[in-house]
Amino acid sequence: MKKVKVGIAGLGRLGKEHAKNLAFKIANAELTAACSIVPAELEFAKNELGVTDVYTDYNEMLAKADIDAVAIVTTSSQHCWQIAAALDAGKHVFSDKPLGVTIEECKMAEAAVERHPELTFFLGFMRRFDPSYAYAMEKIKAGLIGKPYMVKATGIDPEALVQGAIKFAPTSGGIFIDMAIHDIDLMRWFLGSDPVEVYATGATFKHPEFKECGDDETGVAMYKCANGSIGFVHVGRTAPYGYHVETEVVGTEGTLRISPVPEKNLCMIYDKNGAVKECVSGFPERFADAYRLEMEYFIDCVQKGVKPEVTVYDGTKSTQIAFATTEAYKKGGILKIEY
Amino acid sequence: MKKVKVGIAGLGRLGKEHAKNLAFKIANAELTAACSIVPAELEFAKNELGVTDVYTDYNEMLAKADIDAVAIVTTSSQHCWQIAAALDAGKHVFSDKPLGVTIEECKMAEAAVERHPELTFFLGFMRRFDPSYAYAMEKIKAGLIGKPYMVKATGIDPEALVQGAIKFAPTSGGIFIDMAIHDIDLMRWFLGSDPVEVYATGATFKHPEFKECGDDETGVAMYKCANGSIGFVHVGRTAPYGYHVETEVVGTEGTLRISPVPEKNLCMIYDKNGAVKECVSGFPERFADAYRLEMEYFIDCVQKGVKPEVTVYDGTKSTQIAFATTEAYKKGGILKIEY
Amino acid sequence: MKKVKVGIAGLGRLGKEHAKNLAFKIANAELTAACSIVPAELEFAKNELGVTDVYTDYNEMLAKADIDAVAIVTTSSQHCWQIAAALDAGKHVFSDKPLGVTIEECKMAEAAVERHPELTFFLGFMRRFDPSYAYAMEKIKAGLIGKPYMVKATGIDPEALVQGAIKFAPTSGGIFIDMAIHDIDLMRWFLGSDPVEVYATGATFKHPEFKECGDDETGVAMYKCANGSIGFVHVGRTAPYGYHVETEVVGTEGTLRISPVPEKNLCMIYDKNGAVKECVSGFPERFADAYRLEMEYFIDCVQKGVKPEVTVYDGTKSTQIAFATTEAYKKGGILKIEY
Amino acid sequence: MKKVKVGIAGLGRLGKEHAKNLAFKIANAELTAACSIVPAELEFAKNELGVTDVYTDYNEMLAKADIDAVAIVTTSSQHCWQIAAALDAGKHVFSDKPLGVTIEECKMAEAAVERHPELTFFLGFMRRFDPSYAYAMEKIKAGLIGKPYMVKATGIDPEALVQGAIKFAPTSGGIFIDMAIHDIDLMRWFLGSDPVEVYATGATFKHPEFKECGDDETGVAMYKCANGSIGFVHVGRTAPYGYHVETEVVGTEGTLRISPVPEKNLCMIYDKNGAVKECVSGFPERFADAYRLEMEYFIDCVQKGVKPEVTVYDGTKSTQIAFATTEAYKKGGILKIEY
Repeated sequence: MKKVKVGIAGLGRLGKEHAKNLAFKIANAELTAACSIVPAELEFAKNELGVTDVYTDYNEMLAKADIDAVAIVTTSSQHCWQIAAALDAGKHVFSDKPLGVTIEECKMAEAAVERHPELTFFLGFMRRFDPSYAYAMEKIKAGLIGKPYMVKATGIDPEALVQGAIKFAPTSGGIFIDMAIHDIDLMRWFLGSDPVEVYATGATFKHPEFKECGDDETGVAMYKCANGSIGFVHVGRTAPYGYHVETEVVGTEGTLRISPVPEKNLCMIYDKNGAVKECVSGFPERFADAYRLEMEYFIDCVQKGVKPEVTVYDGTKSTQIAFATTEAYKKGGILKIEY
Repeated sequence: MKKVKVGIAGLGRLGKEHAKNLAFKIANAELTAACSIVPAELEFAKNELGVTDVYTDYNEMLAKADIDAVAIVTTSSQHCWQIAAALDAGKHVFSDKPLGVTIEECKMAEAAVERHPELTFFLGFMRRFDPSYAYAMEKIKAGLIGKPYMVKATGIDPEALVQGAIKFAPTSGGIFIDMAIHDIDLMRWFLGSDPVEVYATGATFKHPEFKECGDDETGVAMYKCANGSIGFVHVGRTAPYGYHVETEVVGTEGTLRISPVPEKNLCMIYDKNGAVKECVSGFPERFADAYRLEMEYFIDCVQKGVKPEVTVYDGTKSTQIAFATTEAYKKGGILKIEY
Repeated sequence: MKKVKVGIAGLGRLGKEHAKNLAFKIANAELTAACSIVPAELEFAKNELGVTDVYTDYNEMLAKADIDAVAIVTTSSQHCWQIAAALDAGKHVFSDKPLGVTIEECKMAEAAVERHPELTFFLGFMRRFDPSYAYAMEKIKAGLIGKPYMVKATGIDPEALVQGAIKFAPTSGGIFIDMAIHDIDLMRWFLGSDPVEVYATGATFKHPEFKECGDDETGVAMYKCANGSIGFVHVGRTAPYGYHVETEVVGTEGTLRISPVPEKNLCMIYDKNGAVKECVSGFPERFADAYRLEMEYFIDCVQKGVKPEVTVYDGTKSTQIAFATTEAYKKGGILKIEY
Repeated sequence: MKKVKVGIAGLGRLGKEHAKNLAFKIANAELTAACSIVPAELEFAKNELGVTDVYTDYNEMLAKADIDAVAIVTTSSQHCWQIAAALDAGKHVFSDKPLGVTIEECKMAEAAVERHPELTFFLGFMRRFDPSYAYAMEKIKAGLIGKPYMVKATGIDPEALVQGAIKFAPTSGGIFIDMAIHDIDLMRWFLGSDPVEVYATGATFKHPEFKECGDDETGVAMYKCANGSIGFVHVGRTAPYGYHVETEVVGTEGTLRISPVPEKNLCMIYDKNGAVKECVSGFPERFADAYRLEMEYFIDCVQKGVKPEVTVYDGTKSTQIAFATTEAYKKGGILKIEY
């Protein structure tokens, strides 16, 4: 089967990972072009990835490069127009999450996807591809826990990285937009229903800088979903032990808890502290497999003409929910969510 | 030191445990009288506990029995007047939780306690005496997790007992009053602050009988506390694996999770299901030690004239919060809590 | 039912625990007499236990005290003659392990037990009464793991107590006699067979003092049992994290592992070290329940005239096996074990 | 940097994995040739791997193919001569474990390696590259557990695969040669010392077929090492719950236990059985990452001219130890091991 030729847009931290996966780890993919406005990133493409067809202009890459698909790993605010431009240029599209930063541009991306039913569009909710999350969903579909009716999600960044978060806080859109999008997507995925009401609040006990710019270091939200199920999301930036992503799905016949201990590996250390499991340091460590597996899946969908399960509408909805959560948080109360 | 002579009121399931502890397991206590309106329970007192001084009338026991203290383990609606009567009769009082079933009677109990500063009053929030909860608090006081700012509490009864819950549902006062009082007390205890706002909802996916009587099989509430900290309580009646009481305390320097796996004992079973920890079957198994230890502590306070840390006001407040939660749940929204 | 009156012999660390259990925590027991050659221990009996009938001479207690039974918690070398004397005086006997320190005296104790079939003799292999061990055996009897064919046992004292072990090493009889008797008993109990061959060795990497007196800080032994099953015992004195007693029973249909993490309680701590379970500090903490439960069982056997499952022969055999292990260890090879 | 061109010999179950890694997942490798005596395997190479340069004769591949290196994944008895032939043909060599099936041929392979110091030779003890094992070693080197002085290793194949093991038993060389080679290598690696004495035995309680051909379904061996440290290896074929590879390294300052629960992933299931971790199904699932990482390391060593840490002598020694263990097992006693 012919390899899928891919051009990557954006070669920052995550972009580099996607590019290396495409170049070296995905059997049916070939990384043939790269685009970045950062010269050093294009040097990386040449020297480390062997990609010589490089661009500083995204539209130029679309027009000239020998590519079947693009992988968009640029700043969130660029995603939507780049998605539309690529689809209109006849390219399959892998876009990193979030879909966009306004509902309007999300709708614009939706329209582009609808204009091109012959092309594959994939949105990078990579947690769905993490082996443990994927296994949980498989078990749920097989009925292991009966009907899922509550999701409790936790996502806490490591305290070790908090200075970056503080710096970024004034322009981040707030903690729910910045951090809760994956948890919201997982909640919708596991519950099979959309939230129709949200209550949200926050707390800051360690780094007043967050409070000072109208944000919080911890955000908590509760959701009522259309089918009567319930969601709870706790996001934060100050885990002293590492990167804590944990999701619990409660069902009528059982409960599934994914990663209650965000363990680094299979080592148990018995030392003067007790019996210790060390924890993962951050998302690149925790989700390395998921990033590779979602890209493998995208390439597979392109080759086989299969529509990915995750859709552009999932992208719009998770963004809408994050905005609604932020609004509820700001007004300190309940908000109905309409789509 | 002279043993404390105790008369017990109520010899139902939990009353029997308290009575056996008083009779056989507490060094400084002596069970010298018992009161019950159920003849079989008085037979139990005579035959199994060797208590011959038995009563069917509570006031008669107060008037005639050779007792220094009473242990009240009667129906919740009887607690307050029995507390007041005992104190007015000069007896120290151990009362099972909840303090009462209306705020008015709680206030009446408060007044009685205030009338008798020379007497010991203890309210049976036994979870505080469970070795793991007590240890968690000790570690928190020692600064292990910095400033606690969020409590996430889970309390789910075993599905095995759901028929009883269904039968009792119409008169239970609702799931929050019936089940959340311990979680509310723990939240206040760990956070050192009272909730000032509550949002609550519920869900029923397995036993529609709860819905039919205006209740739910699962209840979820979120609290904002006076000091800015946050509480989340999830109570339910349908855990297929046993009795699940879990509490997480999130602090600025760490997190403490008590009983994430409600393990029956220290056995790990490796069989065709995988690596399995069996779970506790219910509160008598889970909190057997706590029931004994709280009574030991009460007797110790009586002997030494020490005021228990847990007070009658803790009883009133947890009841107020449970009522406020129920009201928020019923109106489907947010409620401010005033004390 | 009439309470069993007990006289205790020996009020050292463990003796005090047994005495407090008998005095305050066992419904059907009454502690009526105490014997010790240490004056302070008799003061303890008077002041803390309310026992006024005290003795410095064991035989005098047997002759004069109002007792149905004795609890022997003296130095190991005194057990056997005290057992025989008590039985010959018509008293039921609870003896702490080990049965004795020579095979000859064990045989002498056996003869005394055989002389008095009307009396209850119980040997304190308390681990069998620990709720987790008892549960494991119950499950094994119910067939959960099929036919057990291997036991892997670990017993390591805390490094925190190593100075005492070093001091005691020259006269301890060696690490296997000093530490392995419980593991040997559990191996025989779980496998339902006696070892017929042993291979043993040791290692010292931290405290050369053990080596200097012909002992080791770690001892390891492998056993072949009569029925073809296999035992492995690892004992040591230098666990930096606390007291580690772990037993694995491997069967044809599954494996049971008791206490792979010697956890202090149900708290999981997430802090800068990772996700941490603190460990128990020593045998008094780990086996507090077991000490109480074995005594409860003994009293129950006396009252009901039931023969305890654990017998005097179990005592002799575990001692024989410990001696054989020591001999194999000393000669650096294999030893056949004959009974 | 120029990619390393590799020819693979052997495309059975594991060979296919190595080939796919070389073809698709290793940045600096290129799979350019394949050799197999099984026609279907060469079809696989052509159709699935895109390798058109295929051979049925190993020497012909060495002579004609455009390769820098060979990856030998053939039957164990073919490894040594193929290693020597490849080295003599100027090719770098990756060989799957074990090095060989007789000491003589191992020595022959050693000589070939010594003849070609300019070439890279790597032996596939892939467990050393498993992220958890590698992390354990890294921590040990950093002093986390002080001086390691005991290794306890467990390796049990899933009962689900036992019929294959039974079929293969008569020609497998016995359970220690068949199954213990990795555990022996890990023991030497973690202890930094070679065993000088072994005691071994076995047991069969489920599948008498093993006994009938002079083998056992479970094998257990104890080792004394030159530096005074101790090893214990337990191998078996009948784990009902999956594939159990666990290694414990006991040191003077702590203990490291790798994979005490051979968990499938990060999901914890709470259902009617309790709190359950499902287990991995076999070595391909457990060590998928390790197979890829060891090959990455080999390619890296070739490119950089670095000598792999694991050497041909490690291969000979582990084989010698497995033979000595088998001999001790057969004679039912102790054997001195000489190298």
